[in-house]
Amino acid sequence: MAVGKPPQGEIPPVPGFTLATTETGTRYKDRDDLFLVKMSPPAATAGVFTTNLVCAPSVTLCRKRLPGGYAEGLAANAGIANASMGDLGWEDAEFITQNAAQALNADPETIFTASTGSIGERLDAEGIAACFPQLADNLQPGNWWAAAKAFMTTDTFPKAGSRTIDLGGKSITIAGIAKGSGMIHPNMATMLSYLFMDAAITPQALQVLLERAVAVSFNSITVDGDTSTNDTLMAFASGVAGNHEITDPDSLDAAPLAEAITSLCQELAQWIVRDGEGASKFVTIRVTGAPSAEKAKRVGMSVAQSSLVKTACAGSDPNWGRIIAAIGYAGVDFDVEKMKVWLGDALIVIGTKRAPDYTEEQGQAVMNQEKIDITIDMGSGEAEQTVWTCDLTHGYITINADYRT
Amino acid sequence: MAVGKPPQGEIPPVPGFTLATTETGTRYKDRDDLFLVKMSPPAATAGVFTTNLVCAPSVTLCRKRLPGGYAEGLAANAGIANASMGDLGWEDAEFITQNAAQALNADPETIFTASTGSIGERLDAEGIAACFPQLADNLQPGNWWAAAKAFMTTDTFPKAGSRTIDLGGKSITIAGIAKGSGMIHPNMATMLSYLFMDAAITPQALQVLLERAVAVSFNSITVDGDTSTNDTLMAFASGVAGNHEITDPDSLDAAPLAEAITSLCQELAQWIVRDGEGASKFVTIRVTGAPSAEKAKRVGMSVAQSSLVKTACAGSDPNWGRIIAAIGYAGVDFDVEKMKVWLGDALIVIGTKRAPDYTEEQGQAVMNQEKIDITIDMGSGEAEQTVWTCDLTHGYITINADYRT
Repeated sequence: MAVGKPPQGEIPPVPGFTLATTETGTRYKDRDDLFLVKMSPPAATAGVFTTNLVCAPSVTLCRKRLPGGYAEGLAANAGIANASMGDLGWEDAEFITQNAAQALNADPETIFTASTGSIGERLDAEGIAACFPQLADNLQPGNWWAAAKAFMTTDTFPKAGSRTIDLGGKSITIAGIAKGSGMIHPNMATMLSYLFMDAAITPQALQVLLERAVAVSFNSITVDGDTSTNDTLMAFASGVAGNHEITDPDSLDAAPLAEAITSLCQELAQWIVRDGEGASKFVTIRVTGAPSAEKAKRVGMSVAQSSLVKTACAGSDPNWGRIIAAIGYAGVDFDVEKMKVWLGDALIVIGTKRAPDYTEEQGQAVMNQEKIDITIDMGSGEAEQTVWTCDLTHGYITINADYRT
Repeated sequence: MAVGKPPQGEIPPVPGFTLATTETGTRYKDRDDLFLVKMSPPAATAGVFTTNLVCAPSVTLCRKRLPGGYAEGLAANAGIANASMGDLGWEDAEFITQNAAQALNADPETIFTASTGSIGERLDAEGIAACFPQLADNLQPGNWWAAAKAFMTTDTFPKAGSRTIDLGGKSITIAGIAKGSGMIHPNMATMLSYLFMDAAITPQALQVLLERAVAVSFNSITVDGDTSTNDTLMAFASGVAGNHEITDPDSLDAAPLAEAITSLCQELAQWIVRDGEGASKFVTIRVTGAPSAEKAKRVGMSVAQSSLVKTACAGSDPNWGRIIAAIGYAGVDFDVEKMKVWLGDALIVIGTKRAPDYTEEQGQAVMNQEKIDITIDMGSGEAEQTVWTCDLTHGYITINADYRT
């Protein structure tokens, strides 16, 4: 199941990036499961990674190489996560990036990598490495949808998008790809996502923009509350567009780029929720009138994570009691008698009571939709935050009680 | 579904307490849904209540009366939670306790009450109050199983237990009843539980013993992570046993009573988990070698709340990758390479790697059982803590996507 699918419209090539995909034959059959991206010239690089203490060597390797500031290549495979393999996992991750570097004629310290799939199984590093020479021969600009398909695991559709903006008279293109459909939870989830842009920006400034964007996108979604061992979001900027290099993330110059990065991250994050394991409803929870953005987010995530709210959405049950209970246990101290809650356009709760004019039919009409909007006005300030989740269905149970990660 | 049921063995009367149950006809058909307990002499009283900001008037009323220190009566009804009803809810709760007081010829300020069931619907306070005279006429010692049945909602079986101990040469009896099967999560859950004992103890000392017991019992269980609006645990001590009154909760005299209260709370809490909505497995997670009990509990609860671990239990899948991922995102900073994890007696993980001698068959044998024990040695200290949960099944989805609270 899934709630909508992105139209696979054209995503333009991004100057400075070429890529290729292939079927390694190491895990999946009849589908590509490896991609290689070449950055030429070396691209300014930023990254945000899983907060899980148990993390894969690919994550640690990327973290270690990030301070270098620039990337020449990126390789990602699907099928085996190369996690929980001890020293073998390290050797395999190093081996993969060394071979990718050789094929790209690049410095191994500038190659980034990710693996996604089963934990605790060894990946076929030799089988993967053997693909790189052929991939390096087939590098093409564009081809984002092929890459988006090549790193899918339990995803039911590929996720990609783009933005084109004007930056000081230069046209800038940003392409983004993402994968993930379960174990989705802040901070970061079983998700991999990469942004590629031709803007000129320093690694430091790009890192700041990426961290701000992730807070209101990938870290504002939840599917099942589980945080994976391999989550990775990285951004690469080639500088080929020739704009005046952005060095200050708070400059006026940076503003349109910041906005485009944030909006693309939100689009990709929302596609991940829409493809949430077993999802049949897409739920947007907007919290306004909060004492702070952090408190707004905490209230929103409390509702988004409530198994009772999520099963009510699955059952199209306008069960406002479960919503206000989840608000009440969010751990944010505020005067609940000042709050208001809407389902779609219908005001359903004032304080902790059913709104006098609310009728069950109004709520039912909203809950019957595939897209459910819940708005919570805390009546306690000016800050606001939006989070996204999906419903909890029999499909989720079927996928996770049977699928072996 | 449910994992085991308590044998409905005899639970002895407790001197100082008489009770009666009845069918109010206000919500359920053909079952008792109201009980009344009379305490004579007035019993020393302690209580722990939901932390939810959105809480029912019965909870606020009990909190308000608790400082009085003594109770003469307790009335609880099932069917309607009397939550989210604004001033009407207040008036109804007051009305119920006033009428119970009249029937018991007691001071209304010494009457405690609870309501459990649907949120946002008005209860029939007059219908309930009309039952009290007849209940007061029928009060009997013992009869704990009837009371345990009368406040069931989605429970599939009644929950009660008892302890008999020697306290300074006097025999002390403690009887306990509990209800709850969903929305179960620290701190406190949709659960109501009451302990009745004939020990002589001050309200202040009893409060300390109760709070200590709840931390390692009702606050160490989770079914679905939702905290309800009505959770209540109270203890009443009549003093009729005639032991030297306990005033110091840390005295040697108090120790056997503390142990009995804790062990009875754990038994009742475990029955709630075993009756978790849709539960087919009972999962015990013991965390040892922790830097502190608090950190042990946080790690244990992270595993207990993981939807991926809970669905793996449902599917009898020895998926150790999900267990160590949940340990890793618990928010406790420790050296994960020092940890060890067991499934039953089988050592499955050392550090973040599969243990060399572990075979899938060993793990499968454990996961096939109805009772699953997970042991985590953090290798980082001496503290330990145990938490309990159940699996996440299609039954949970069916109950909560259809049942209207």
